[in-house]
Amino acid sequence: MAIKITSVFSMRHLFLLSLAMNISLILRTMYEREHGLNWLCFEAPNGHLSQRTRLSLSSSSTSATTTPIYAQPGGDSIINLARGDPIMFERYWRQMGDKATVVIPGWQYISYFSDVTNICWFLEPEFAKEVVRVHRVVGNAVTEGRHIVVGTGSSQLYLAALFALSPHNASEPISVVSQAPYYSSYPSMTDCLKSGLYKWVGDAQSFNKEGPYIELVTSPNNPDGDVRRSVVNKSEGILVHDLAYYWPQYTPISSPADHEIMLFTVSKSTGHAGMRIGWALVKDQEVARRMTKFIELNTIGVSKDSQLRAAKVLKAVSDSSEDAAGNSEEDESFFEFSYQLMAERWKLLRKAVEHRGSFSLPEFPPAFCTFLNRVSEPQPAFAWMKCEVDIEDCESFLQGHKILTRGGKDFGVSPKYVRISMLDRDDNFNLFVKRLSTIHL
Amino acid sequence: MAIKITSVFSMRHLFLLSLAMNISLILRTMYEREHGLNWLCFEAPNGHLSQRTRLSLSSSSTSATTTPIYAQPGGDSIINLARGDPIMFERYWRQMGDKATVVIPGWQYISYFSDVTNICWFLEPEFAKEVVRVHRVVGNAVTEGRHIVVGTGSSQLYLAALFALSPHNASEPISVVSQAPYYSSYPSMTDCLKSGLYKWVGDAQSFNKEGPYIELVTSPNNPDGDVRRSVVNKSEGILVHDLAYYWPQYTPISSPADHEIMLFTVSKSTGHAGMRIGWALVKDQEVARRMTKFIELNTIGVSKDSQLRAAKVLKAVSDSSEDAAGNSEEDESFFEFSYQLMAERWKLLRKAVEHRGSFSLPEFPPAFCTFLNRVSEPQPAFAWMKCEVDIEDCESFLQGHKILTRGGKDFGVSPKYVRISMLDRDDNFNLFVKRLSTIHL
Repeated sequence: MAIKITSVFSMRHLFLLSLAMNISLILRTMYEREHGLNWLCFEAPNGHLSQRTRLSLSSSSTSATTTPIYAQPGGDSIINLARGDPIMFERYWRQMGDKATVVIPGWQYISYFSDVTNICWFLEPEFAKEVVRVHRVVGNAVTEGRHIVVGTGSSQLYLAALFALSPHNASEPISVVSQAPYYSSYPSMTDCLKSGLYKWVGDAQSFNKEGPYIELVTSPNNPDGDVRRSVVNKSEGILVHDLAYYWPQYTPISSPADHEIMLFTVSKSTGHAGMRIGWALVKDQEVARRMTKFIELNTIGVSKDSQLRAAKVLKAVSDSSEDAAGNSEEDESFFEFSYQLMAERWKLLRKAVEHRGSFSLPEFPPAFCTFLNRVSEPQPAFAWMKCEVDIEDCESFLQGHKILTRGGKDFGVSPKYVRISMLDRDDNFNLFVKRLSTIHL
Repeated sequence: MAIKITSVFSMRHLFLLSLAMNISLILRTMYEREHGLNWLCFEAPNGHLSQRTRLSLSSSSTSATTTPIYAQPGGDSIINLARGDPIMFERYWRQMGDKATVVIPGWQYISYFSDVTNICWFLEPEFAKEVVRVHRVVGNAVTEGRHIVVGTGSSQLYLAALFALSPHNASEPISVVSQAPYYSSYPSMTDCLKSGLYKWVGDAQSFNKEGPYIELVTSPNNPDGDVRRSVVNKSEGILVHDLAYYWPQYTPISSPADHEIMLFTVSKSTGHAGMRIGWALVKDQEVARRMTKFIELNTIGVSKDSQLRAAKVLKAVSDSSEDAAGNSEEDESFFEFSYQLMAERWKLLRKAVEHRGSFSLPEFPPAFCTFLNRVSEPQPAFAWMKCEVDIEDCESFLQGHKILTRGGKDFGVSPKYVRISMLDRDDNFNLFVKRLSTIHL
């Protein structure tokens, strides 16, 4: 009898154990799924998009969708175009073979220092050379008389510029403004440490405080693709130009940009976000020195390996632009390839949107591109789409259709707008266009 | 006549032009020299060391030296051991041949993301694997149940830890303390943005404020090589352990370190400072998540290229530790090589110092090293030297002999102390020891 009871208990024990394991495994899967999505939406300030994503995943009945999931192209798969991961040029770099391959032996580039005669002492000369060359080839920025400061992506250079331009003995932090819609990460990047040096104030158009301020001008703009100029026009303004998208595949190059501080990045120009390499062209020596000081205090310099790889990739871009014979894939011009790719995508998206009339996209006038030497179309890296019908929150609406975008509120404007990445892989982008064109309103 | 005057003016013109060019070239050379030195001293807070360096260069008569420069070993060459650039292992990596060479094709690792199922979504799995392995091989840290957060050097991870551990709704910034002498960059890194979240308060030994605080424990300590424990011991303390030097070449490994937050870096472990790769082992999931968030806001992740290269180098270190047959140079164990190198240098330095009796160095008891499986000597990456004679400012005194070091004040203690890097190239280190032994007091 005693033996029988023990064996019954053992069975129950095992069953409970197994049940506990099942629950634990299910929770683990849910957790990973939830957090996978959470981390994918890394640009959303204050985790606000992620929160909503979580809600819609854990309780799909509360979402705004009226279309059954099984009727959607791609089934119930989630199409995440909320982030701006620029992986659409992968195909180009594959067909380039070894031209952009970098090889670094274990004993090279081990020092903190790259060039102690340069203000930016961690700037690799080879990288600096290719930065100057690519701007000369493309004609999109003046490099003569400029200091180059390399950064761990242009994010770090944005923070370095804030540090360099803020008065360090002022009684209150300097105001930082940008015309809405502005890049959704600016507010959280600026305010995350509650700095006493600078403070995010918001839309530049409603800014009317006296005294010094920093105005960010992103041109073409993220999210809406507009070509921008400063809008505040007060005497004590300092301008920072974020020119991440001023490349021929996104916008016609009208003339070499010629501003005090200009930020660029390989993430959007060549599509190598994983390198985390950006550069600033800086007119004033003292500003360049202080930006360098910030990067020294922040990360003691910038990865040499990525600078070397960026140099190789920029060289391949310049070579392909100068020598393009068009006879073989390996000769293809990078900007011709990427321009055509963006053109195809914008054509597909406009067709899907026009088809229904429920959404609208911005229209851009074509213009002469000095690099392509012909009239070219602006075709931004993000589509800034508006819900034209009676839907207040376009992001939530699309989320109901398992299309993840970023809503207007994150960019300082109406939730009727969403920003959609045009830079994902072909299959994901094509699935998105297909699903969008089936949405009934 | 008119022709003659013109030709005379032309000559003068040319002469003046040539003179102007000479002056310009001389100024340029002076400028480069001055700034080269300035940037070399990058760890000095508030540019204070650089200022002094400039002074001594522009007016050597005001320096404390009484020894004519031509009588010094190495002539009037400046020996800069103020910085901690770890280039002494270059020789090892040369003899390793291709074992630590990394090859990255242009189309790989282009995304922002490495592993979206990981809290640290920009952590390359290959790098994470080699981090776990090297700690298992060396036995210097517990990795089980830890989250790995990768950073752009351990500097960025220090800042990420401050962000993660600071209460974000507090009325005043949390106090950050460390026992003096502390790493000279901590104060300026902590306070450079005048953050409302955290504030450098200074020496942990004199800290007696109530409420939460963050205590940094660097062990072995930079600058003095001491094995450290926390000293404040109040209830609301949060500890961050900087274990950059807890490797067999610098100190006997007693047991695997087992703390809440532990920081490591390839800069000092393998000597690859140019990669800017560090890692944190973090017990608490929420802290790991917030550290990741900081790096996202700061640089949107960490260079993939350097993570891949770091993985390759760490693999070579682990392989060499496990397989070392000692038959050929290519088989040599990294830690045996680096231990012997440090041992030789400390022997040379102690001999030079004892010879005169004007300076003193800290003494460390040997201890059993679980990795080397024998009693080993502590041989720190920096020599913390004291002027025993009547010289108040040891840094200025040595500067008079064109030996650049970093003075005690930068580390929160007496100027009678200087920190000297033991990690420079052989020729520079040998020249330093030679010159030090000729200094008459």
